[in-house]
Amino acid sequence: MVRFRQMIKGSPDADLTCTHNSIVHIKATGICGSEIHFWKTGRIGIILEVGGEVTAFNVGDRVSIEPGVACFECKQCIGGRYNLCPRVAFSGTPPTHGTLARYIAHPARFLHKIPDTMTYAEGALVEPLSVAAGAIERARPGLGQPVLVCGAGPIGLATALCARAAGAHPVGVTDLDEHRLAQAASFGFDRGVKVDLAWTREQFADAVRSKMGAQSHPEIVFECTGAQSSIAGSIYAVSDGGTVLQVGCGKPEIELPIMAMSFREVSLITSLRYKSTWPTVIRLLNEKVFGDAAQLITHTFPLELSREAFETCVTASERSIKVQIVDEE
Amino acid sequence: MVRFRQMIKGSPDADLTCTHNSIVHIKATGICGSEIHFWKTGRIGIILEVGGEVTAFNVGDRVSIEPGVACFECKQCIGGRYNLCPRVAFSGTPPTHGTLARYIAHPARFLHKIPDTMTYAEGALVEPLSVAAGAIERARPGLGQPVLVCGAGPIGLATALCARAAGAHPVGVTDLDEHRLAQAASFGFDRGVKVDLAWTREQFADAVRSKMGAQSHPEIVFECTGAQSSIAGSIYAVSDGGTVLQVGCGKPEIELPIMAMSFREVSLITSLRYKSTWPTVIRLLNEKVFGDAAQLITHTFPLELSREAFETCVTASERSIKVQIVDEE
Amino acid sequence: MVRFRQMIKGSPDADLTCTHNSIVHIKATGICGSEIHFWKTGRIGIILEVGGEVTAFNVGDRVSIEPGVACFECKQCIGGRYNLCPRVAFSGTPPTHGTLARYIAHPARFLHKIPDTMTYAEGALVEPLSVAAGAIERARPGLGQPVLVCGAGPIGLATALCARAAGAHPVGVTDLDEHRLAQAASFGFDRGVKVDLAWTREQFADAVRSKMGAQSHPEIVFECTGAQSSIAGSIYAVSDGGTVLQVGCGKPEIELPIMAMSFREVSLITSLRYKSTWPTVIRLLNEKVFGDAAQLITHTFPLELSREAFETCVTASERSIKVQIVDEE
Amino acid sequence: MVRFRQMIKGSPDADLTCTHNSIVHIKATGICGSEIHFWKTGRIGIILEVGGEVTAFNVGDRVSIEPGVACFECKQCIGGRYNLCPRVAFSGTPPTHGTLARYIAHPARFLHKIPDTMTYAEGALVEPLSVAAGAIERARPGLGQPVLVCGAGPIGLATALCARAAGAHPVGVTDLDEHRLAQAASFGFDRGVKVDLAWTREQFADAVRSKMGAQSHPEIVFECTGAQSSIAGSIYAVSDGGTVLQVGCGKPEIELPIMAMSFREVSLITSLRYKSTWPTVIRLLNEKVFGDAAQLITHTFPLELSREAFETCVTASERSIKVQIVDEE
Repeated sequence: MVRFRQMIKGSPDADLTCTHNSIVHIKATGICGSEIHFWKTGRIGIILEVGGEVTAFNVGDRVSIEPGVACFECKQCIGGRYNLCPRVAFSGTPPTHGTLARYIAHPARFLHKIPDTMTYAEGALVEPLSVAAGAIERARPGLGQPVLVCGAGPIGLATALCARAAGAHPVGVTDLDEHRLAQAASFGFDRGVKVDLAWTREQFADAVRSKMGAQSHPEIVFECTGAQSSIAGSIYAVSDGGTVLQVGCGKPEIELPIMAMSFREVSLITSLRYKSTWPTVIRLLNEKVFGDAAQLITHTFPLELSREAFETCVTASERSIKVQIVDEE
Repeated sequence: MVRFRQMIKGSPDADLTCTHNSIVHIKATGICGSEIHFWKTGRIGIILEVGGEVTAFNVGDRVSIEPGVACFECKQCIGGRYNLCPRVAFSGTPPTHGTLARYIAHPARFLHKIPDTMTYAEGALVEPLSVAAGAIERARPGLGQPVLVCGAGPIGLATALCARAAGAHPVGVTDLDEHRLAQAASFGFDRGVKVDLAWTREQFADAVRSKMGAQSHPEIVFECTGAQSSIAGSIYAVSDGGTVLQVGCGKPEIELPIMAMSFREVSLITSLRYKSTWPTVIRLLNEKVFGDAAQLITHTFPLELSREAFETCVTASERSIKVQIVDEE
Repeated sequence: MVRFRQMIKGSPDADLTCTHNSIVHIKATGICGSEIHFWKTGRIGIILEVGGEVTAFNVGDRVSIEPGVACFECKQCIGGRYNLCPRVAFSGTPPTHGTLARYIAHPARFLHKIPDTMTYAEGALVEPLSVAAGAIERARPGLGQPVLVCGAGPIGLATALCARAAGAHPVGVTDLDEHRLAQAASFGFDRGVKVDLAWTREQFADAVRSKMGAQSHPEIVFECTGAQSSIAGSIYAVSDGGTVLQVGCGKPEIELPIMAMSFREVSLITSLRYKSTWPTVIRLLNEKVFGDAAQLITHTFPLELSREAFETCVTASERSIKVQIVDEE
Repeated sequence: MVRFRQMIKGSPDADLTCTHNSIVHIKATGICGSEIHFWKTGRIGIILEVGGEVTAFNVGDRVSIEPGVACFECKQCIGGRYNLCPRVAFSGTPPTHGTLARYIAHPARFLHKIPDTMTYAEGALVEPLSVAAGAIERARPGLGQPVLVCGAGPIGLATALCARAAGAHPVGVTDLDEHRLAQAASFGFDRGVKVDLAWTREQFADAVRSKMGAQSHPEIVFECTGAQSSIAGSIYAVSDGGTVLQVGCGKPEIELPIMAMSFREVSLITSLRYKSTWPTVIRLLNEKVFGDAAQLITHTFPLELSREAFETCVTASERSIKVQIVDEE
């Protein structure tokens, strides 16, 4: 556990050499993790200094930090898909490689003002809701289009919230875990399917379709587990001509029933991170469009207890969704 | 007023010569009207007889009637845009040419089962909400995209309800009439802009943008008035690169600021009626996705008082949104 | 070989019970085949009789036959995707189950007039070019977008012809066989990549990118082989954010590098047969938009030599692309 | 004419204060003009110096200059529509305000290498073909979709070339002038419609539809004249559900038959300049995808005869399409 402790320190390298940067004092950081690595997400801070060419911000502004810094010189950036920038820089994303820095320098283009009324808990949700909003933008569910979300963890729940806000209806949810389905139900997603790893693809499809209803077979599936059985089951569960969108990552290789896809014109698409989602998500969160999304933050720790925060994240018995670390200083 | 009285009669021509037809006893009819003509919309009925090749329905089923009967032989129908079918037949739409028939024969493809729990008031909303849903499908607002709806009459309110359900946010509304804006506010649309016919286009745009907020200039405008000043004002109010969608009809010719459109890459698109909207709208209405949309029905009359129903429709002092005629028999 | 012989006979079941049907005397049939089954494609005929409700055709008209007969009552048909109709009927597609009938009854909606100037060879290409045009419509390459076609067999070449006609540029082609690449080059597709089954995915990608040029890495791949190595290689070869479209069928299951897809926002989509392609393809063929596409027909046999036709189809040494059977009667 | 003479001078203000800039010696400039103002388009040059942070270019590289310099800080730029950047800077576009400068400083992001084999005449076409390619990208004609181009001037011809290269077929052309239609025919656009200002809209539509053929009524119209009668006529001529795209500018206000649009679900969209078109257009020009597009350059003058070049541009009897000024120095 010594590696947690070393993350909590200042950032002597946070400087203003680049005049488009601002120095931000990080006040709150969301984390989500697995056995393998942690992600720092949804960081909020207060601007301490602004570079010479920064006009959009003032010292003292509260901001949400969009982590990927794209180049805006390459073909992808110029073409509007800066999430695909091959030169994108993430400032120390996995804490095992970086630090839980107190101060960071960040370009103005990737800082976004948040309203005074926005809480830390809401601020921590901007990043996961941006992943979700990016996925929604790729698949663009129409008004009243039935949607299934596989996986009721933080990204799955964020995706379900965004899909519902985007007009998808109904929104079904799957998970292996009853407790997570109960959490999903508490957000109003009561068409929960408790899946079983022993199921065949047909059983998966039957369970989903039966729960969602005869008029509401899913036309888009947001697959947020990365599990082989869930991806293949989704391809069987989705309607003819439908789309399965893989959100996030899982195993590097899966066995894919491609003939079943071709015979029913099913597509398997992907979405990578987010682009241009921050301002919209901040606005929607602030106006409560997602309902009480802040309930997704189940645990909050002071910076000094970061070790306990990370432990909570990976301890099944804690039943955490999102964990947040706050710097009270 | 004699022309109203003659509409209330049976329909001796409702037969089953075509074996794909069903005979429907009309139980409720929504009407909307102007000085010039009335539209019968949102008719609900009960199936009395089914043709020999009708398998989807049984006698006694409650159905909503989709009025336009397309051919499904032409290029437009085969290509998925049956709303553009050049041979589409409307069974006596304007009552001045038709009748408020008690019985009609209608093809199974254009009858849609409604749940037992659906009220007549909700059923009467399927047609206007389908017009709205058709417009939404054309413009496809994204999650959190700011939208303006011009006109707070029945179609404007239905469009605002659909836009909000489809994820647009915020949804502003304009009208000349304070009372209508208050009605819109009662549905939650509190960014109402009381427009003035004497305004310049710039004044129109300024008022809209100021009401909607600096981060929320409208990117799509659903123009439901057909008025010259509102269309031209919308072109000025919409964001650079945005879209104005003309819903419904107005004057045949307008003066269009096309250079202002070209310089800001603004588009003016249209939507004609609806296609494939009925099943979705019925489902969404039944699951209260639009909130208490049934409040759009402000007046209900028995079939014997159809004359009063039509009069209510065109009498400003009645403050009607939608009027419905119900056959209690 | 007795099964070939029994196919050549009349069709006593070709009747006009359905008044929307016409009776067609089949004059030419394209075939393509594998060890497992044959497909009759691109049939042309002459109308012998028309049903009572057929107004679009006259006896003696030359027509191309669109084989899949969709219902136009279901949700998919009404929604514009009749290729997904769950009730679609193929009139005896694989000859092992059907016959090389001389006469068939076929609904008017799926018969398409061909110009007097159109040859049998051109007519036989309408079906494979429709498969290709359907794939193009799904992926919609933009003007000058670099495209790769995997597989230089009949469907691969037809897809390359359609992609080029649709503005894709350059259009690279892969195949295992030098002779097929030479055939592709004779149609102007000179960026041929001779692939090797022993290659890694990276080698596949490098070979493709090197042949297509640094400014022209493929943004869309039309995968027409169904082979595991080609699909996985395509996912590596396509540009970040690109699309691999699986045309036709192959193995039921493949191993898919899904993490490599997610990290680069690559999508794997499919296209099933065709919809609304016949009139356009006939028009484009007739106006030589595809160049001398008729060279795709490499062999022609009279109906009496159907056995030899099928044998040619599966004999590698014959180097056939498309084989056609013509009824001289 | 003194105003022409003063344009030919050096550019003392071409400096490298911004380290992302390069200094370019302008070698050739295309011009197009009207009574009112001239546009310098399609400039080609040779790089004389590169700023400290420019890595993509070397001294001596031949480049094509993309004129609009967008900020890449605003919402539109970040969202992929840099053509809508509200801070876009044009380096002295209309020569009445600027100069025919010999040297300019220009950011690397908006300089594009051209192959050694590309002629000045081809280079001068990158700009007008980019306007056309931008319009094509907005309307995205499908393979074999019938298209009409109104106006056979430089932008009209460039648009017709791009539409054909993008798979539109057939491509009809209108003009008031027989000579221009003959020029269009020399590029293969032989479905020319000689329009008449006295025509009604119905006559316009009939003439277009008759020339294009019963199976080929235009589904997209690229309107390149800006004339009232041509825009209104196009709305009547386009197929039900079709699109009229206004390319470039004309009168600020027109009378629009909006009811005729609504009744047939016709849309009127616009396209502003170009984005991300330069690399593709250079590649397609270099590979002769547009055929012998260089024939669009009808006149070439040395820099010393710029006055004569501008005069040629506006003298009807010269029958110019594009005029080019070349600096032999």
